[in-house]
Amino acid sequence: MNTNKINNLQIAYIGGGSRGWARGLMSDLAMEAQLSGVVRLYDIDYEAAKANETIGNSLKEHPDVQSIWDYKAEKSLKDALTGADFVVISILPGTFDEMESDVHAPEKYGIYQSVGDTVGPAGVLRAMRCIPMFVEIAEGIKTYCPGAWIINYTNPLSVCVGTLYSVFPGIKAIGCCHEIFHAQLLFAKMLETEYDIKDISKEDIIVNVLGINHFSWIDRASYKNIDLMPLFYKLIDKYKNEGYPLNAGDKDQSNHFRNINKVCFDLSEHYGVMAAAGDRHLAEFMPRSWYLKNPECIEKWGFGLTPVSWRKKSLSEALKITGKYLSGKEQFIPNKSGEEGVKQIKSIAGLTELVTNANMPNIGQNEGLPLGTIVESNAVFSRDSVRPVFSGKLPDAVNQIVLKHAINQQLIIKAGIEKDIDLAFNVFINDNLMTLDIDDAKKLFSEMLNNTRKYLEGWDLSQYI
Amino acid sequence: MNTNKINNLQIAYIGGGSRGWARGLMSDLAMEAQLSGVVRLYDIDYEAAKANETIGNSLKEHPDVQSIWDYKAEKSLKDALTGADFVVISILPGTFDEMESDVHAPEKYGIYQSVGDTVGPAGVLRAMRCIPMFVEIAEGIKTYCPGAWIINYTNPLSVCVGTLYSVFPGIKAIGCCHEIFHAQLLFAKMLETEYDIKDISKEDIIVNVLGINHFSWIDRASYKNIDLMPLFYKLIDKYKNEGYPLNAGDKDQSNHFRNINKVCFDLSEHYGVMAAAGDRHLAEFMPRSWYLKNPECIEKWGFGLTPVSWRKKSLSEALKITGKYLSGKEQFIPNKSGEEGVKQIKSIAGLTELVTNANMPNIGQNEGLPLGTIVESNAVFSRDSVRPVFSGKLPDAVNQIVLKHAINQQLIIKAGIEKDIDLAFNVFINDNLMTLDIDDAKKLFSEMLNNTRKYLEGWDLSQYI
Amino acid sequence: MNTNKINNLQIAYIGGGSRGWARGLMSDLAMEAQLSGVVRLYDIDYEAAKANETIGNSLKEHPDVQSIWDYKAEKSLKDALTGADFVVISILPGTFDEMESDVHAPEKYGIYQSVGDTVGPAGVLRAMRCIPMFVEIAEGIKTYCPGAWIINYTNPLSVCVGTLYSVFPGIKAIGCCHEIFHAQLLFAKMLETEYDIKDISKEDIIVNVLGINHFSWIDRASYKNIDLMPLFYKLIDKYKNEGYPLNAGDKDQSNHFRNINKVCFDLSEHYGVMAAAGDRHLAEFMPRSWYLKNPECIEKWGFGLTPVSWRKKSLSEALKITGKYLSGKEQFIPNKSGEEGVKQIKSIAGLTELVTNANMPNIGQNEGLPLGTIVESNAVFSRDSVRPVFSGKLPDAVNQIVLKHAINQQLIIKAGIEKDIDLAFNVFINDNLMTLDIDDAKKLFSEMLNNTRKYLEGWDLSQYI
Amino acid sequence: MNTNKINNLQIAYIGGGSRGWARGLMSDLAMEAQLSGVVRLYDIDYEAAKANETIGNSLKEHPDVQSIWDYKAEKSLKDALTGADFVVISILPGTFDEMESDVHAPEKYGIYQSVGDTVGPAGVLRAMRCIPMFVEIAEGIKTYCPGAWIINYTNPLSVCVGTLYSVFPGIKAIGCCHEIFHAQLLFAKMLETEYDIKDISKEDIIVNVLGINHFSWIDRASYKNIDLMPLFYKLIDKYKNEGYPLNAGDKDQSNHFRNINKVCFDLSEHYGVMAAAGDRHLAEFMPRSWYLKNPECIEKWGFGLTPVSWRKKSLSEALKITGKYLSGKEQFIPNKSGEEGVKQIKSIAGLTELVTNANMPNIGQNEGLPLGTIVESNAVFSRDSVRPVFSGKLPDAVNQIVLKHAINQQLIIKAGIEKDIDLAFNVFINDNLMTLDIDDAKKLFSEMLNNTRKYLEGWDLSQYI
Repeated sequence: MNTNKINNLQIAYIGGGSRGWARGLMSDLAMEAQLSGVVRLYDIDYEAAKANETIGNSLKEHPDVQSIWDYKAEKSLKDALTGADFVVISILPGTFDEMESDVHAPEKYGIYQSVGDTVGPAGVLRAMRCIPMFVEIAEGIKTYCPGAWIINYTNPLSVCVGTLYSVFPGIKAIGCCHEIFHAQLLFAKMLETEYDIKDISKEDIIVNVLGINHFSWIDRASYKNIDLMPLFYKLIDKYKNEGYPLNAGDKDQSNHFRNINKVCFDLSEHYGVMAAAGDRHLAEFMPRSWYLKNPECIEKWGFGLTPVSWRKKSLSEALKITGKYLSGKEQFIPNKSGEEGVKQIKSIAGLTELVTNANMPNIGQNEGLPLGTIVESNAVFSRDSVRPVFSGKLPDAVNQIVLKHAINQQLIIKAGIEKDIDLAFNVFINDNLMTLDIDDAKKLFSEMLNNTRKYLEGWDLSQYI
Repeated sequence: MNTNKINNLQIAYIGGGSRGWARGLMSDLAMEAQLSGVVRLYDIDYEAAKANETIGNSLKEHPDVQSIWDYKAEKSLKDALTGADFVVISILPGTFDEMESDVHAPEKYGIYQSVGDTVGPAGVLRAMRCIPMFVEIAEGIKTYCPGAWIINYTNPLSVCVGTLYSVFPGIKAIGCCHEIFHAQLLFAKMLETEYDIKDISKEDIIVNVLGINHFSWIDRASYKNIDLMPLFYKLIDKYKNEGYPLNAGDKDQSNHFRNINKVCFDLSEHYGVMAAAGDRHLAEFMPRSWYLKNPECIEKWGFGLTPVSWRKKSLSEALKITGKYLSGKEQFIPNKSGEEGVKQIKSIAGLTELVTNANMPNIGQNEGLPLGTIVESNAVFSRDSVRPVFSGKLPDAVNQIVLKHAINQQLIIKAGIEKDIDLAFNVFINDNLMTLDIDDAKKLFSEMLNNTRKYLEGWDLSQYI
Repeated sequence: MNTNKINNLQIAYIGGGSRGWARGLMSDLAMEAQLSGVVRLYDIDYEAAKANETIGNSLKEHPDVQSIWDYKAEKSLKDALTGADFVVISILPGTFDEMESDVHAPEKYGIYQSVGDTVGPAGVLRAMRCIPMFVEIAEGIKTYCPGAWIINYTNPLSVCVGTLYSVFPGIKAIGCCHEIFHAQLLFAKMLETEYDIKDISKEDIIVNVLGINHFSWIDRASYKNIDLMPLFYKLIDKYKNEGYPLNAGDKDQSNHFRNINKVCFDLSEHYGVMAAAGDRHLAEFMPRSWYLKNPECIEKWGFGLTPVSWRKKSLSEALKITGKYLSGKEQFIPNKSGEEGVKQIKSIAGLTELVTNANMPNIGQNEGLPLGTIVESNAVFSRDSVRPVFSGKLPDAVNQIVLKHAINQQLIIKAGIEKDIDLAFNVFINDNLMTLDIDDAKKLFSEMLNNTRKYLEGWDLSQYI
Repeated sequence: MNTNKINNLQIAYIGGGSRGWARGLMSDLAMEAQLSGVVRLYDIDYEAAKANETIGNSLKEHPDVQSIWDYKAEKSLKDALTGADFVVISILPGTFDEMESDVHAPEKYGIYQSVGDTVGPAGVLRAMRCIPMFVEIAEGIKTYCPGAWIINYTNPLSVCVGTLYSVFPGIKAIGCCHEIFHAQLLFAKMLETEYDIKDISKEDIIVNVLGINHFSWIDRASYKNIDLMPLFYKLIDKYKNEGYPLNAGDKDQSNHFRNINKVCFDLSEHYGVMAAAGDRHLAEFMPRSWYLKNPECIEKWGFGLTPVSWRKKSLSEALKITGKYLSGKEQFIPNKSGEEGVKQIKSIAGLTELVTNANMPNIGQNEGLPLGTIVESNAVFSRDSVRPVFSGKLPDAVNQIVLKHAINQQLIIKAGIEKDIDLAFNVFINDNLMTLDIDDAKKLFSEMLNNTRKYLEGWDLSQYI
């Protein structure tokens, strides 16, 4: 009996329109010698799925691959899900046109958003589009593969995962995100520059994770027997004014993902725990007056606002490359993505035990947040099992801020499932970036609803637009 | 055995500087035929206590009194508390000079406060002065009269009651407030004008109370078998624009306590439950942009801002009257206060069973707020017992707002007891009226700390002033 | 507008076969001047309902009645429930033949049961018969009168009420029981004999109730400003050997309901809180070796075992009287029952506010028992509302015993609803009276199942009989 | 910077009188190349500590050792604890004379106990001796090494760990036990015999652990991608009658630790989860009628009762060997113990991340047991951190039984700390092996108290002996 290799694993991949994610997963699967099987691709744009099928199958002939996977585009969610052991979800809710409204419509009221996919007015509207899609997916899973494990990458991640659990409480779903890796790499860089310890992989940096996705925190970090927190605070003192970019390009003025960790350092100093996400995400969770008050303020903190026009351009370039792959002009070369999805699949399949961070319903792993809200913490991954590790409680002052967002996320899920527009509006005006008075807030909400209304079937919007 | 009259009850009265409260209590005691005993008066201003002693004892000769009480000024807290069955607390934390800073210093940053004794920047600073006083009182009670019942009227009421329980968890303390009576009287007025039912006393209006002091809510109200909520919402429709003052004088432009219930009606309509406090209080709990954005906004909602200069003037007039009483030029005439304190004392002494509202630590009576925060709900009063009645949960959207304040109150108590200035500042900037950026917030905090610093012994303020 | 009288109240009465209860309710309704309306009678024995209809309507002509009620027998549960404001449930689950097996089959293994309707092997089997009946009733209520208030008198009371809430969580149901009145009357008697205070009604004895039905406890009791607990413990010292019967007949050797409160006194002394139910009930909850070890032990404690043969005889006598009423040979004379049902109906209808004990799901009113188990505590009754009062926690040692029963009750409900015979057997062997080894326990269970099997449709009993 | 070896670790070893444990730890430390440091030995018998010092230091010269440790006997707890990074506790509470009473006194009432160190009457008395010792140790730790990690091996393990946390809530303590390894080895054996997979180490068997020490359960078990539960239940069917000993000697009639896993198989079949401890422990937790009813019953289940006379003999043999080591006649040869203590120390020191079982206060890792009770579950060990992993909930029927013991343990800790003899007696009579009536129970308690009274200083035993 060979217990070191698992063949014939069935993976359903939902979405993948945003290309990058799909190719990353394909690469990671191809490089994992202990697993092989079938990936069934489903996208509302069948042609996109079909293109991924072709590209995925082309890997079989590549000399570097460690294992063989079959890719197959499916025309229905049902076909993709039936028989799946794992379901990977990475969808774009709507198009970049709707996202353009999410991110930029509030700017005329002075509200700037650096990402616009999680919280803020943009996050609320994006959630309203996402929730019905995840309701449908959850119902499909309940019917066609109730025992499968679900790995979601879609943002707003907590809202998506929460929707899955609301619709199908027995689901086995986690939300995965690489923001914590950023913090681990930051520690590795610090160890290298300060102590000359090289080649530390992020897995060697042991951290305790608390909070919610994109607004997560680390209160303890170690490398071997070294406590990393004193080192971190020493470097805050040194670099809080000039910033401390992880990579050279992170501070380029032209980089829309610009991030010199000044927000991270400021929050970490203010609250006494490390803010463990990129500055562009962190800024959106705090009261507007802190980091997103106005363009000068944003400039001062040194992080980029990512315009949706850039995303549109980037997409069209990605499509050109796809064309080349499909026409055979270029060959798709597998390249490890840096994501942990396949590692997690391997653990859940039974081959290794793994401790890493995951977003799941709070069953007590976070003492300061309500049970049932989706929180980020470490978890132990093993065969058919992901169990949260107790992560403790954030300091009171910061817990207050996280709590507000956790409850807002719970409420927008409720509003989305029950199509309760009043509750959605209450979440909208209760967001930390929303400093408008009720009348202006209603005007902005109305405009944004209007721009996204084709995704709001079944809602009674009459009081708002 | 006469079980219908209790003699020799021992009451300690702490504070009373604000005269009005002391005389109300004296009146109510004098009119209650089933109780008699001794009131020991303690005030940091011994002369004020002494004056109350004289005035209190003068009642014995008044023909209208139903029972005889002895009043005695005490020089120490210990003497006042020793042997007490009840302790009534009604102190002014600091003087009106500090309150002037609390209420008016923020105005130069555009932050207006209508009362300034509960939340807002004023509430935070007032809490910081109050907490050490209540720590001392709680320790005194623990030592000298651990079995006594404590009735607190001092604001910020929740913070004061919470401090008592933090210091001496075995204490039997409640916070009492008349704001709910206002809602009951409003219903009585509605029944009279709409249904021509007259002479309804507030006790006949049965309400379910939820929330926290000064930001309390009613989700069910009855008079006999009539559900009052439909009537209430009918009148909101009718009067939401012009307002619905309880008494004629409530809308006078010159009235600093002006209140036409427009805020109450707006909140009740927005959230679907009745906001059960006066508009001046309610407005301070909401985000600043709702009702206190600027003078025009306040004007529009029709409630008064109470300047501290008025309080100073009013105090000096009260002192003149005291002078007349003491000199014998005028006689103090007992007059029922409308407060419930003596009724509650009578129940706790064992003579009646009473269901009314009280502020106590949450042991589950409010499902939506954390255990241990001080919440307002109904309670059953009987001999040596006040037991909360389960009040349920507020609608999600409003619960979010109440929750934020409840936690802020818990945190300012913690900050006050541990003299943790960083935590106090975090509460300050987390208040709903605080829309300043960190730098301005720090400047304002600094100024306010400076104005109240003589009450902040033992705090390390060096990072802030 | 007359708000002091409510006409046209709709009451559905389910059961009533045990005659006594039905006539008590009819009497109490007839004597309540402020209420009138219709009672719709439903019984699986339609003739019994029809008889009650005739007897109930005969009251209209009786000179003593204070109000007029129409009685109408209905042929279906649906007809009885539709439009009901209140539903009163008092059914006999099965016949006295099944009860005979419940109570007496265990005797050959040395297991004696004094009542056999709540816990013990009898209680488990009775619960198994009851639960499907209450599932049907709950579904009927959900469909035909979801807003009605349900008052259940059927035993095992906690299991019946718990079943209603399990099936229809939105139900407004309470379980009512007079065992607490017994304790109140005991206090009244003590006050009369020791202090010569006469004519005290049970309502004047204010008690705090904790625990579960038939195994309830009182940790505080007052009459006016008198603490009754010291008096109670003084009388325990005096009477613990000879016993302290409430009424003369309570100690007659021929009385199958014999009760001299020796068990009550022993438990109250052992645990430091008053055991507030009759000895026949209390004994069944404790480990068998305490009070039901063997006939000599039972004799020593002085309480009666009620044989089912007596119940059969008593029923046949009641039927004879019914015959006389129906034939007109005798007239039914209304007579206050001593139960509180009509008083509670009056409060819930809105006419008075009432604080009394009720059995409801634990939402925190009992700190020591799991949320959701059915517990007994005080509650405030007002219009369309019954809200538990927080009753605190029993002393640890006795809480352990109560907890075991509370969980057993929760599990038998689960077993009954899911028809899980293994879980039912686990409850059976986990009962405090069950000291047999597994093999004997299985034999006894098998026999008892066999005797009651016609009520166990849908269960897979093959492993057990 | 060498981060792969930690020198100068400070370990305090409390107890060690039972020799075996001390030598196991010495061996394991000697074989761990990545750690070295000092072990300070403290025992109330200083000579025993001194002997261990000599033996421990003798290891330095042994050719097989991988690292050098200094051993030093200390005369006071203070000296042992001061500066400690780890504290290992393994004491014998009292002598085998007291244990003889614990185990054998109940036999004249027909109560047999197979181990007598955890629950049953023996467990209660042993707990009463242990608790004051652990109070003293906890106070010492709080004063002299509040940041140290505590590893306790003493039984009753849950009670000892619970006492530490009760006295010093900030303590970092775990209880360690090898019973789970037994289950893992059982699975390894099954894999070998059924699937011919060899050389599986216990670490490769991934299990989810629930329950309390010595009464722990496994609801999921895996080896790589193999679900082991179906295999386990297949073997139960096959071997439940004849038994399934782990090692050949486990079934010898002369073996006082005889264990053929019939109790394990019976419980696992009855409740649907694996009972994960040896039969001798499991039997003591169940109602007496199951496995310890009488000698025939015990014989039938095939497990051994361990007489204390055997322990006495075994100790005297161990002392002879010690004499040989001390005199140099024999050399102490390091030999891996099979325990995990040193592996855990290595992880907590920071060198590896480890997931294994530990006994800690329930903060939610076990959903079915009260918060604060000491429960067994997996935990993640890393630098200065042991964090429980959420283990879920046991099936209802077995959770009931575990719950009872968990609360009993909590109550005996309370009784022990407050020296509340009534509460201790209530725990005694509430134990599952205690089927005596109150009078006999009191007689037995009296005798056992008398035999152990020199360890019960400060208790008022007058009502009991």
